[in-house]
Amino acid sequence: MDIKFVKAKTLKEKPDQSNLPFGRIFTDYMFTMDYDPENGWHNATIEPYGPISLDPSACVFHYAQEVFEGTKAYKTPDGHVQLFRPQENFARLNRSAKRLCIPPIDEDFALEALKQLVEIEKDWIPTAPGTSLYIRPFIFATENYIGVHVSSTYKFFIILCPVGSYYEDGLKPAVMHIEQVYARTVAGGTGEAKCGGNYAGSLAATEKANEEGYEETLWLDGATRKNIEEVGSCNIMFKIDGKFVTPKLTGTILPGITRKSIIQLLKSWGETVEERVLPIQELLDDYHAGKVEEVFGMGTAAVVAPIGKLNYAGEDMVFNNDEIGPSAQKIYDTLVGIQHGTVEDPFNWVVKVC
Amino acid sequence: MDIKFVKAKTLKEKPDQSNLPFGRIFTDYMFTMDYDPENGWHNATIEPYGPISLDPSACVFHYAQEVFEGTKAYKTPDGHVQLFRPQENFARLNRSAKRLCIPPIDEDFALEALKQLVEIEKDWIPTAPGTSLYIRPFIFATENYIGVHVSSTYKFFIILCPVGSYYEDGLKPAVMHIEQVYARTVAGGTGEAKCGGNYAGSLAATEKANEEGYEETLWLDGATRKNIEEVGSCNIMFKIDGKFVTPKLTGTILPGITRKSIIQLLKSWGETVEERVLPIQELLDDYHAGKVEEVFGMGTAAVVAPIGKLNYAGEDMVFNNDEIGPSAQKIYDTLVGIQHGTVEDPFNWVVKVC
Repeated sequence: MDIKFVKAKTLKEKPDQSNLPFGRIFTDYMFTMDYDPENGWHNATIEPYGPISLDPSACVFHYAQEVFEGTKAYKTPDGHVQLFRPQENFARLNRSAKRLCIPPIDEDFALEALKQLVEIEKDWIPTAPGTSLYIRPFIFATENYIGVHVSSTYKFFIILCPVGSYYEDGLKPAVMHIEQVYARTVAGGTGEAKCGGNYAGSLAATEKANEEGYEETLWLDGATRKNIEEVGSCNIMFKIDGKFVTPKLTGTILPGITRKSIIQLLKSWGETVEERVLPIQELLDDYHAGKVEEVFGMGTAAVVAPIGKLNYAGEDMVFNNDEIGPSAQKIYDTLVGIQHGTVEDPFNWVVKVC
Repeated sequence: MDIKFVKAKTLKEKPDQSNLPFGRIFTDYMFTMDYDPENGWHNATIEPYGPISLDPSACVFHYAQEVFEGTKAYKTPDGHVQLFRPQENFARLNRSAKRLCIPPIDEDFALEALKQLVEIEKDWIPTAPGTSLYIRPFIFATENYIGVHVSSTYKFFIILCPVGSYYEDGLKPAVMHIEQVYARTVAGGTGEAKCGGNYAGSLAATEKANEEGYEETLWLDGATRKNIEEVGSCNIMFKIDGKFVTPKLTGTILPGITRKSIIQLLKSWGETVEERVLPIQELLDDYHAGKVEEVFGMGTAAVVAPIGKLNYAGEDMVFNNDEIGPSAQKIYDTLVGIQHGTVEDPFNWVVKVC
């Protein structure tokens, strides 16, 4: 399939790199394509970023048939542009799409489209330390029909926004809260899909956590509320008694690409990594026995998010004196280095754009 | 707040009443209003039905912060126009909105807006038996910001579509299937909210049920898979050994307005109605003991949906010889009669429009 290019009449002014907000500034162009049963995915176009016109009866407004991804493009010190494991994002987008009954995209074609878009927009990639170009592929249902049903038509987009460093002054430990009232998902639900409904349902818990002074919510499994799952915006890793432990992917947890990469990285360093069910009671016991060395989140936005305090049922667990642990720092430096091309990539994770 | 009226340049041709599809034909006008933190809900307008322009970064496309309602307007034999318990819909819309962190609407104002809209569109209300004007109020998040967050801006719509009788040839028993793999929700989730994510997550199970020859999915509770919950598109009622039993509202089940009305109606007739946890094992035992007299769904679209067959783990339970039961028929006739103004309304459920 050819990608049509529609040139913008004028280009926007690039923003100040020293003060980039997350997710509010978009580049000059976006990639779009359409799906209908007769043509499949078609009408692939790189066109000026701009509004979409939809009928009020479009499925997406009523039944949330929508999936998305998040990844980044980086500029290396020698001026090259590269992506980090983008194939994994398109593979996961298709797995999410399957759960939501959305027709799959051609992953190789989507990667080619992404490369073309990023190359066109390469001057938008910020170069200040820790900055990058955030990439948001997403698909939503567009059929003008308000019966509850699988839509017959869809739109796929890739939009781009330059983003600042997640940590303006370097890594900083977060304060989190283990949610006991709200639930994120349950086996058989949509927990492992990156779909809008998971996030809409989580907002109330995040609001409550914020009001109580916590930055994020750590979720337990929805059925028993006994096992640790994920943070909603990222996966979680514990270093307990010298070993790394992270909840295993049982169908309710998002299979994070940063999670997967960190597990590979740790194993390549000879560390022991256990992917298994991790009961909150076990964590409490290990914490009281002084065995919990470090805790950190793992996700695209922050890469590594050290967790200094974690509140459960009124008790504050404090990890590594509320300071960044050596493992979190080493993983962060290595992964961010690979992503930005300042550290060698022995895993073949990086995909060169230009 | 005043409601601005924007007149349409031309009006559409009214559709053939004998063959109205559900949810695909919309009237000439829609009601809209906007929310922002400075003005609250404002800009209330009745305007020509037509497309909305949104930025690709609008929250609704990414995080499904969206809620909706469904109700109907009816034309009585003497030409009056009436609604059925619309206050209940706006109250539930606000409860759904609260769960999804969406700011509440003024319920009285929304009802006034709905009445004005329906009065303007009264010639669109079909009059053939069983037909009505379906009403879809909905709210979605519009902020142009792809951070996971509670949107600061929203749009509220009411759109209308003339719909045919759910049962073209009178009531017909449905064939359903009890889902054992997929889950709809769990305590602490969004099950009692009418939000898009619940429906998006259910599509895969409905697709599977349809492929296996079933019309709909009956959900068990997501945590234990032991207790009967709801059908997704409607609530469910069992007549067992002379008593009516329906799953109680434990937070995971949509609090149906038809459900509530049928419970009131049955009690007014002196029937026993139990709202309680109903284990699937109890239903199986009662079925094998010959005690299950009737089963039917309860919802806005069908009003009453008799269930003739229900499959669980490979076993087909057949109720009332796969025929419409006398209770289902009596409830249907009474409720549809009240809605259409052919049966007296002793409950004050009907709201006159004009």
